[in-house]
This record gives sequence, structure tokens and C-alpha cells, in this order.
Amino acid sequence: MKNNVNRRNFLKTTTAAGLGLALTPGFVLGRNPSNSQGQVSIGFIGVGLRGRSHLNLISGRDDVTVPAICDVDPDAITKAQKVLRDNGKKEAEAYTEDANVYRKLLERQDLDGVIIATPWRWHSPMAVDAMKAHKYVGLEVPAATTLDGCWDLVKAHEETGTQLMFLENVCYAREVLAVLQMLKNNLFGTPVHATCGYKHDLRGVKFDGVEFGEKANNEAKWRTQHSLKRNADLYPTHGVGPVAKWFNINRGNRFEYLTSVATKSEGLHQYIVDHPEGGPDHPNAKLDWKLGDIVTTIIKTANGETIVISHDTNLPRPYSWGFTLHGTKGIWNGQYEGRRIYIEGKSKQHQWESGDDYDAWMKKYDHPLWKKYENAAREAGHGGIDYFTDRTFVECVKQNAYPPIDVYDAAAWSSITPLSEESISLGSKSVNFPDFTGGRWIKREPVFGRSKIF
Amino acid sequence: MKNNVNRRNFLKTTTAAGLGLALTPGFVLGRNPSNSQGQVSIGFIGVGLRGRSHLNLISGRDDVTVPAICDVDPDAITKAQKVLRDNGKKEAEAYTEDANVYRKLLERQDLDGVIIATPWRWHSPMAVDAMKAHKYVGLEVPAATTLDGCWDLVKAHEETGTQLMFLENVCYAREVLAVLQMLKNNLFGTPVHATCGYKHDLRGVKFDGVEFGEKANNEAKWRTQHSLKRNADLYPTHGVGPVAKWFNINRGNRFEYLTSVATKSEGLHQYIVDHPEGGPDHPNAKLDWKLGDIVTTIIKTANGETIVISHDTNLPRPYSWGFTLHGTKGIWNGQYEGRRIYIEGKSKQHQWESGDDYDAWMKKYDHPLWKKYENAAREAGHGGIDYFTDRTFVECVKQNAYPPIDVYDAAAWSSITPLSEESISLGSKSVNFPDFTGGRWIKREPVFGRSKIF
Repeated sequence: MKNNVNRRNFLKTTTAAGLGLALTPGFVLGRNPSNSQGQVSIGFIGVGLRGRSHLNLISGRDDVTVPAICDVDPDAITKAQKVLRDNGKKEAEAYTEDANVYRKLLERQDLDGVIIATPWRWHSPMAVDAMKAHKYVGLEVPAATTLDGCWDLVKAHEETGTQLMFLENVCYAREVLAVLQMLKNNLFGTPVHATCGYKHDLRGVKFDGVEFGEKANNEAKWRTQHSLKRNADLYPTHGVGPVAKWFNINRGNRFEYLTSVATKSEGLHQYIVDHPEGGPDHPNAKLDWKLGDIVTTIIKTANGETIVISHDTNLPRPYSWGFTLHGTKGIWNGQYEGRRIYIEGKSKQHQWESGDDYDAWMKKYDHPLWKKYENAAREAGHGGIDYFTDRTFVECVKQNAYPPIDVYDAAAWSSITPLSEESISLGSKSVNFPDFTGGRWIKREPVFGRSKIF
Repeated sequence: MKNNVNRRNFLKTTTAAGLGLALTPGFVLGRNPSNSQGQVSIGFIGVGLRGRSHLNLISGRDDVTVPAICDVDPDAITKAQKVLRDNGKKEAEAYTEDANVYRKLLERQDLDGVIIATPWRWHSPMAVDAMKAHKYVGLEVPAATTLDGCWDLVKAHEETGTQLMFLENVCYAREVLAVLQMLKNNLFGTPVHATCGYKHDLRGVKFDGVEFGEKANNEAKWRTQHSLKRNADLYPTHGVGPVAKWFNINRGNRFEYLTSVATKSEGLHQYIVDHPEGGPDHPNAKLDWKLGDIVTTIIKTANGETIVISHDTNLPRPYSWGFTLHGTKGIWNGQYEGRRIYIEGKSKQHQWESGDDYDAWMKKYDHPLWKKYENAAREAGHGGIDYFTDRTFVECVKQNAYPPIDVYDAAAWSSITPLSEESISLGSKSVNFPDFTGGRWIKREPVFGRSKIF
């Protein structure tokens, strides 16, 4: 199907989705030509730290070949080739000349899909180009940094009929999927409220010593600029993705509006001042960091739930996703927030269940695919979430199946960044979400975690 | 000074406060005439469950007499007289004829102060009348349910020169005061963010069985109407009071604006439907409850901090004040939120201190007055917080001293109810706080927890 998707085919595909025919992952949109022996061929755009992590998991599979990789950093290419060799794969053809050479990779006819794991601002344009080149896209988070970028993804998908899976790995956390099972089994009654966030002391990631940008390596090269220039929830999807799946966002529900409030910005400045390589006279101590240390966003959904999202990356703290779920029959706090649960009529009145009692609940509602792939997931590292994310992506590409985390999820979740920025800049005015589904959210049915692809 | 406070005296008093002369509790504004032997005389308006709790603590003291009590419920009067007798005190003169008979009590010349613990809507008008009658007021929370009610308190204080102590008891929680000590000692660096709230499953309080109003007793008689009629943070002060003290609100800082978002209302309806005395056909199952089950409010302060307040009273859950404090050097979670602390450079990197390690921190920064009165407080019940609140009130009345929790605190904290209601009704628009101090917040210095009165 690669190069002859026309407007008619596009309409067929998207109408099928609109009518609810493509409601479960596994609904096969078309065979991939290179997939005759259950094999798929995946290219990689961006093989820095994060890209190589995907490369390692995906090239370690027997059903995947990786003929092409792309990165502007030759050192990243060298390290990526070693990952391939270590996994018993051939070295890939490398595309490294300049920032636009990824388009050459996309011209290849032997790729069924691509993983995009580049700096944030490249995510949307690269994914759009990849969809136009009819490559099944696996896109790292966030999907876009602007509202236009979110819309571009949706339009490219709808115009080309090409799929995009949004690689939001926290959706595959064991506790996230157990809570999904609990909701399916009505354990919490009607869900009413959730909290989530990205609470991660990134000061050591944002700086090499106290340097960033050209003088720095890895993410400090580009990520830190966002903290300098923008006051917004820069990284909402790890928190909000799982909650969106619990609340069936874009499938019977949607984000209606948000309001965001940012604290002052103290953390990064203080870090530079206190650092042995910094001090009050270091040039970076003169910078005016736009990002408030903690940005709190409240979303109201069409079904009446609220979601409180915390973006907290400039201050000392232990890591957390900040998960809480509260319904008419119970409340749950996730692994970083105390691991505790209270279910009316089952828990001792007014008392949390924690420790072994908590574990028993989580075991009872463990997701079947987590049970099945537990060992493989554990060996893959990162708590297993990347294993399931990449597994799902590869299975989707194999079958050219509709992804369980799709382009509408990518757009809605990532739009929180520009919308929170707008809210903050207007004194915490509430700001409406666009409806990226064009009204189809009303009829679309939940699919995530509900099929073998999951 | 009782009946001859004129405009001139008022100006002297408030100007003294304005100039920072009355900065510490213990600054004596004038002797109380009945206080010649270190004795004070306290009247009680409202001797329901909450009023009798104060009555028990205060009448148990050797330095207090209670000559007058007031309640429209004769049964409450009977129970209150028993409290007095059990404490070895004479029965008080009872005022019980009608809702306005409290004014007769206020006409008495033998009262130095009054405690007001009536249904919410009476708090502000009764406190205004009490200040006009030159009785030192101890006012239960919330101080008012409307913005006008907040202003009335401030104006009455400024016009009469009479003091009001706001009886927000959570300010005296041991952990709240320890955190105050930690902040004074710069343990958290610059404070940036806090969370708090009133997370209390009140369904059993809001209903007798599934009845409320005239058919019910105690708080279900009147409190439940607020959930029926208003969508707002109805009860903000237990959470926000302590945070306001940590952040020096009205004393070098102030609440600037807030934005509030409410969930749908499911909890109370579901409770009635599921209750053995209720069911789907019960008349109360037809009611349209205005109060969203969870109301989340974010306040931005003049100094750039944010405060996230949760009002959560309609759903099953264990009790919590929801306290978190986050600064440039560390983060803390309170007794209901995991009891854990992380201090940069002292805690193991990226790891919470909990259990004994947490306790050691709390012990190190235990407030001196908690250490001193620990046993007395423990015997008084309620975790000791009421002991310290009432002790402080009595000491303030004895010396006619400026209270550590004053009328401006009462107004600012309580104004969250009408302001959150306005924000919610306008689709979570951000709403500015009035400046109840008339600009004096800029120069006023922190006093709470800093003197023997504390």
C-alpha cells in the first residue's frame, strides 16, 4: 500500500475509524509488503540515549531488522552500530550529514516503520514527513511543542492514512494497567478525580556541570533551552497519558479546558549559584529562567472528572509520577505516592491498605499481558515499561494495526504544553482544548489494554 | 477600655499594628478589667459538639470562669452545663430563647471574651456584634461564607479596636509547627510550593441516615445545605491556614489570585442511593447537589509561591490534610501523606527519609511550646491541637494581646470559599483576592509561633 494511498483510500480508512470499525488494536488496515514472513523493518531517526534504548529493545527481537539509522551526531551513530552488533544484527546504513538527512532515510522502500527519538522540536515535523512517506511512526514524547505541531500530526495521519503510535511508556507501567483493570471491574465506582505529574529532579540532566547548549552533551544540549524560554508544563504526557487511558479520553470523553499556575523560578538559578563549577558570578547565574519551578495544571473533562498535573523538574526531590485515582467507591495512591488503596466496604473503615494488603490488590488486578511477559519485561530494564511499549509498536507495525495510543492521544496530551503556557501567560485564565478528533470522541470506544496487541 | 473605644483609640491601635509595633503576640493593647488576678471570664455562643469541646478545654482551666453560654438548642445547653459541673465550675447563665439572644449575652459587662462556635453563616455577624460589644473574640472556622462577611470582620476590628483570634486549630499541629521551625532555620531553602486540603469523608456527618436539615441532628442539621447549594471550597482553612503561616501571608506576602476547578457531583447522590435507609426512590436521591465532589484550588502568592488546596468531603477515603511543602533545598510530606522528607545534601540522593529517620527530623525541629506542653496537650485529646489553640486564646484574652492568628488571616483564608465559587461559576477563571490589610501586609512581620503566647 505504500505509495498509492490516495484520497479515496484515506477516506475509507478514516471513515472506518470514525464508524468504530477500527476500534480494537489488531484491526488490520492493510498488509505490510515486507511482512510476508512476520518480519518488519524499522528505521531509527535519533539514536541518542533514548533512541538507543529503543534500538536495543527492538533490534534484540528476532522479528525485526534495522536497515537504517539517522543522527546528526556521528558519535551516536557509532554507539548505535555497536548496539546492533551486540544484538547480533548487521550494522545499519547511517544518515548523519545534516538535520534534514532523515528525509533520505524516509525515502527508503524497505522500511515498514520508523522510531523517532530526537529533540522535542523535531518530533512533529519528522513524524509528519514519515507519515507522508507511509512509514508507520513510533513517536517519542512529547509529540509536539506547539498547537500547530499537534494539528499537523492529526492532519498528516488523516490525509495519508498512515498510523502513528505515541510511545508514552508510562501507560504500560504495571500499576497503571492494574488500575485500568480495576476500573473495568468497577472497583472504584465512578471515577471522579486523578492526580499525576512529572516530578523529576532534572537539574543534573539540564546541565553538564552548570553548562547547557553548545557547551554541553546529551539532553543538556537542547532540552534546557525550553526551561529558559518557556513557562509551561513542558512534559505532561508521562503523567497525563495513563490518566487519559483510565478516563477514556478521545473515546467517550475528552479534555475540555485547563487552567495552569506556575511558581516563581528559583531552582535552576540556585543550582548554578551553589554548584562548585558555577557560583554567583558565572554567566549562567545571570539568566532569567522562564520556567516556574512547579507548574500545576487542572484539566476538566467532558465527563466531569478533574485531573491535576504537576510539572516539577527544577528542585531537589525523589522521583514520582504523582498518581492518585479517586472514585465514588475508593481511592488509590501509586508506587511513588505511598502505595496505598482504600475500597469502601472492603478496606477497614477510614484506613488505607498498604504493604502486603496493597500488593494483594495489585496482584489480583494484574494485567494479563504483564503476567505473561513479566520475565521478558524485567530483563529489558526500565521497570519493563519500554519492553511493552516497543513490543506493542512492533506488533502494530507487523499487522499495520490501529495503535492503542494514537495520533489523537499524541495531540491531546501534548497540547497541554502550549495550552498551559497560554493559561499562565494570561494570569491563569482557563483555556479550552481543541477537539482533535473532530467530534468522533463521542462514539469512539476504548481500546487500550484490551487486546493481545495492547 | 470596654465601652469607650473611640475613633481616636482605634486609630492608635491600628496604626501601631501598621507601624509594626504590635508585631508579636504579647504586645499588650490594654488591660482587661476583670483580669486583675490573672483571671478571665469567657462566654460561649454555640455549645453544640464543637462548642462543648472548646468549653471543656477552657472551663477546665483554673484561670477561666464561664458565666454565660448561649445556644438555641436546650439540649446543647443541658450538656454544656454538665461539662461545666464536671470541670468543677458553676453552671453558667443560659441564653437560649431565639437566634438573636446571643446579643443579650454580649451586653454583659463581666465577659472578657467570647468563643463563637455556631453554624457557619452566623460566624461573621456574631463576631461583628461581639467586637462591637468589645469582647475579645475567638471565632471558629470558617470566619465567613461570603466576601462581605470577611470585610465585615475586618471593618469591625478596625472600627472598634477589638481583637479577634481565628481558632484555626490545625495551625497548632505538631508537624505544622515543626515545619515552621524548619523554615525559620532555612532547612528547605526558599519555599516555592505547598499542597494542603480538607480530605475528609463527611458523608456520615452530612447525613443522619440519609436525612439532613430539620429531620437531622448536629451538623447534618445545617452543614449539608452548603453542599446542596454551593459549588466551592466550602472549608479551606484547615489546609490553607498552616500554609499561610509557613508563607507569611498578610505579613510580607499575600494571596494574589486563585483558580478553582470542581469535579462533577456523584458522591452524595450515590451515598443516598446505596444507603439501606435510602435507595433510588428516596426523595433525597432526586436532589441536585451543587458541590463538586473534589474542588481543587490553586493560589498564587505575591512572593511567587503556589498553594494547591483540595476540598474532598463527598467520597470514601481516609482522612488527610494533604500537606506537602517544597523549597529549593528540600521537600516534606505530612503525617497523612506518607511522613517523609528529603533534604538536599543531607538525605541519601533521590531517596525519601521515612520512619525513624523522619521522626528524627521532626524531633529535632519540634516547637519549644510543644515540648513544654506535650503532656497537657495529649491529655486534652484531638491530637493536642485544640489544647494549644484554646490556650493561646485564653492567654491573649488575659493580656488583651494581639492574636497570632488575626482577623486578616480569618478574612483572607475564609475568602477562598466565595472566590473559588466565583472562579468555578465562571469556568475556572482566575479571580483576584481582596487585600484585607489595606496594603499593610508589605510591612507587617510574622508573629505566629514566635512568642510565649504563640
